[in-house]
Amino acid sequence: MSQEETIAREEVEGWWSTSLTRIAPGEIELRGYPVQELIGAASFVDTIWLLLRGEFPAGRQSALLEAALTASVDHGPQAPSIAAARMAATCGVGLNNAVASGVNLLGDVHGGAGQQCMELLEALRARQEAGEDPAEAARAAVAEHRAAGRYVPGFGHRFHPRDPRRDPLLGLVAEAAEAGVVSGTHLALAQELERALAAGRERPVPMNIDGATAVVYCELGFPPELGRGLFVLSRSVGVLAHAWEERQGGARIKGPIPRRLLAGYTGPAARAVPRR
Amino acid sequence: MSQEETIAREEVEGWWSTSLTRIAPGEIELRGYPVQELIGAASFVDTIWLLLRGEFPAGRQSALLEAALTASVDHGPQAPSIAAARMAATCGVGLNNAVASGVNLLGDVHGGAGQQCMELLEALRARQEAGEDPAEAARAAVAEHRAAGRYVPGFGHRFHPRDPRRDPLLGLVAEAAEAGVVSGTHLALAQELERALAAGRERPVPMNIDGATAVVYCELGFPPELGRGLFVLSRSVGVLAHAWEERQGGARIKGPIPRRLLAGYTGPAARAVPRR
Amino acid sequence: MSQEETIAREEVEGWWSTSLTRIAPGEIELRGYPVQELIGAASFVDTIWLLLRGEFPAGRQSALLEAALTASVDHGPQAPSIAAARMAATCGVGLNNAVASGVNLLGDVHGGAGQQCMELLEALRARQEAGEDPAEAARAAVAEHRAAGRYVPGFGHRFHPRDPRRDPLLGLVAEAAEAGVVSGTHLALAQELERALAAGRERPVPMNIDGATAVVYCELGFPPELGRGLFVLSRSVGVLAHAWEERQGGARIKGPIPRRLLAGYTGPAARAVPRR
Amino acid sequence: MSQEETIAREEVEGWWSTSLTRIAPGEIELRGYPVQELIGAASFVDTIWLLLRGEFPAGRQSALLEAALTASVDHGPQAPSIAAARMAATCGVGLNNAVASGVNLLGDVHGGAGQQCMELLEALRARQEAGEDPAEAARAAVAEHRAAGRYVPGFGHRFHPRDPRRDPLLGLVAEAAEAGVVSGTHLALAQELERALAAGRERPVPMNIDGATAVVYCELGFPPELGRGLFVLSRSVGVLAHAWEERQGGARIKGPIPRRLLAGYTGPAARAVPRR
Repeated sequence: MSQEETIAREEVEGWWSTSLTRIAPGEIELRGYPVQELIGAASFVDTIWLLLRGEFPAGRQSALLEAALTASVDHGPQAPSIAAARMAATCGVGLNNAVASGVNLLGDVHGGAGQQCMELLEALRARQEAGEDPAEAARAAVAEHRAAGRYVPGFGHRFHPRDPRRDPLLGLVAEAAEAGVVSGTHLALAQELERALAAGRERPVPMNIDGATAVVYCELGFPPELGRGLFVLSRSVGVLAHAWEERQGGARIKGPIPRRLLAGYTGPAARAVPRR
Repeated sequence: MSQEETIAREEVEGWWSTSLTRIAPGEIELRGYPVQELIGAASFVDTIWLLLRGEFPAGRQSALLEAALTASVDHGPQAPSIAAARMAATCGVGLNNAVASGVNLLGDVHGGAGQQCMELLEALRARQEAGEDPAEAARAAVAEHRAAGRYVPGFGHRFHPRDPRRDPLLGLVAEAAEAGVVSGTHLALAQELERALAAGRERPVPMNIDGATAVVYCELGFPPELGRGLFVLSRSVGVLAHAWEERQGGARIKGPIPRRLLAGYTGPAARAVPRR
Repeated sequence: MSQEETIAREEVEGWWSTSLTRIAPGEIELRGYPVQELIGAASFVDTIWLLLRGEFPAGRQSALLEAALTASVDHGPQAPSIAAARMAATCGVGLNNAVASGVNLLGDVHGGAGQQCMELLEALRARQEAGEDPAEAARAAVAEHRAAGRYVPGFGHRFHPRDPRRDPLLGLVAEAAEAGVVSGTHLALAQELERALAAGRERPVPMNIDGATAVVYCELGFPPELGRGLFVLSRSVGVLAHAWEERQGGARIKGPIPRRLLAGYTGPAARAVPRR
Repeated sequence: MSQEETIAREEVEGWWSTSLTRIAPGEIELRGYPVQELIGAASFVDTIWLLLRGEFPAGRQSALLEAALTASVDHGPQAPSIAAARMAATCGVGLNNAVASGVNLLGDVHGGAGQQCMELLEALRARQEAGEDPAEAARAAVAEHRAAGRYVPGFGHRFHPRDPRRDPLLGLVAEAAEAGVVSGTHLALAQELERALAAGRERPVPMNIDGATAVVYCELGFPPELGRGLFVLSRSVGVLAHAWEERQGGARIKGPIPRRLLAGYTGPAARAVPRR
């Protein structure tokens, strides 16, 4: 390999090209806005929107996003993401590592229900736009999930008979729809799903936080995958706060249950190592 | 081990006790506030403060925190945290895993300078409270760092001669100090450090984003370790936005440099495996 | 909630029950084997097998697993998993955090091809057992992948015309099949896939490391998901070695390209922040 | 920025240079050894040594490394690293993400004691080489730790009165020292520490797994930081096996304690959100 050999500078710089942020000595622009003008002028939530979408939100859209981000910050230390971060905080790693350990658990099952609910709502919207009756489409979707033995993502909660975050979030969406800030289409479809799930049952299966935030994010035009991304930003707050609480407590190498309790053992009894 | 044996329920529940969030069927309270009342009423930044500190911020404190969180969201794809998240996004993991991979890199060197600057400012404040002259203390601190061959954390930037985020952040702190929202003590101490660093030099070593946000967080009463935590929350926004941009680009298994370029090799020449 | 209230100790202990390891004061048994008898008597690879499968491997099975684990340890610093770990090592986190950052990237695309190839081989085996001609089944599988615009996992390499790890691994499997250590079924099916992929093409699409290790792991009876798990154990070696090399180099906050090069920017030109 | 502008190819390739692995189309060499010759000829443990150290181990050194790697693979599901990985496995992330989540917790406190013990042993060796009496140096080190209220890393166990892994590991080191494979210096120093810790106490504070593996790794010439790295490789086996066991169990979003138990809450009582 010859040191004389050259390559186009653009090849390397293009490999890491981005439409997000332009950096030059003494200059930082986010989506074209000089950072020194953003500081103090743009809210944190507006800046989140700006980075993810490329433009600022229209006035009252921002308040809806703010409400959804606020609603999901925490659900207590029994959530595995939170518990993992708390345990990490007792193991001598940085708070950044503790937060990463928690966020890493917000996968298809723990944090992905919102994303899946958004995909379902988008699918229902496509069927509606194709002329299908929304109530009929919702009933069909519920039937399909039940036939496959799967939960309808975003509905029902293993702990809360009715998730206390549902009503205020849906109420804000309804207000925004009345004011013309959002269309209300996804809200209506989610309510069709709720009706279809409740039909013929004694106990309804109301929307949970994943479903309610899915409605917000769909109404605001976020793609489903960013539903998970926004949940990550929101829950990171709780993850950090719990890790910090644990750090202040000073425990070391804290396991899931108190030390004197032992994990039950279900494997083979003691035996001799075979000669190899 | 007998199945009949019982333990105090409190022992298990207390092991995971928290002062952050109370959960009961149908109820979620954050620091005592019912979540349904927070949604729509509390801003995201206020909720961050509430979870980390236990109470809401006093009026204009919140604006300072908002400015600092906004200022740090991104610094382009060459930051290793961002690059790692972008590469992760091309490897078939969830956005949560991509964000975690990026956040995991915000350690003592990449994200920890803010925390270290806060520790330094707190140390100077203690010396000032003990009667020492702040300018003298700052000069001594600079001399100590130089003697040890260490950077003064929060000052100077390898890329920006003057970090464009410095002036607007310090300006907001100065305004808040004038209005009595914060004391201005840490701002003054940081400026003493800046003066001590510039003394006898042609090129000053101005505060960078780590230093400017350290001033904000110290003035607002956050402990140093939370300086890193707040940076994690802020930079998570850029990490997510970059991972999402890469996901949309559709690249697969994207390495640091274009594929046809090869890493230089500096190890031994080809050799035969010895018989063992 | 009364502190007097008690719960069955078994409920808590059972929640964390395991068949892997029994711990008591002064005692550690892995799958029933006292650890003090394993040390010095069991090889590391045998212990990996023991923990994952519950029993020790039969004699020469172990050598096949050893070969596959050895084959995958590294593929240079341009692999995103390795690059992420190297960058992490320059950011002031522990080697454990650097390794985790790298391993976290071994997802469906970067590390999952082996798992997917194992799933394909198992599907072909099921069709063969159901009476289908293996060559016919392989051709159908290739056609299905091509029709869907998908790669056949485990075949072809974007860099190596012929992966140098293919022949020695398949050679060892063929030897083991002749000796009756394994059945050779999956080897034969993978070769059918290779033939089907080459048919009518000038350049064949030979098995790559993911395909060759998939054959080994299938022949040894590992379920597909553990194919990814074993790759994680193997590649962790390279991840650690690269992170360590970078640590020794002493770079700080190393990004993907040298500092003076800038990421290309494709977003909007500079603009003023709108009044909100 | 002009697309015509070129840079030296070496600048980019050198940025990612490595002494570990050379890659060219159809060629992979690890430390100069063609991978096709390593497969089947080099053991997994020898390959670990090769990548980390640059050369193969001398004959019986390898057996000592193998014993230490085997000894540390698991210590049950109550270790936070293992618990975090098990919880991750129930959250819908890949096994690679589950392993990364566990490994990420092996920090200064949970996995770092071995590294710290190696640093202490190296410090004692330096004092011995400088002419100090080893027993005296060990007593001084113990006194320093006690005065600072710190544990001597690598000694004592909160669960095992005597760690069952201590004797077999130290026995193998003693044998290797007699055979001239290692010097025995660090073993002797660690035993001095053990004596100094036991002096005047009813209950001794014997070496634990961190201490015993620290002796092995020091005797084999590994630097302290790689002590943590080797522990990561070893414990990754248990982390993977536990994550896999949990995956097979099929639990979803498994928290640290059974669902019906609630975390104890110690924060403020319910209160109204203040008007802002």
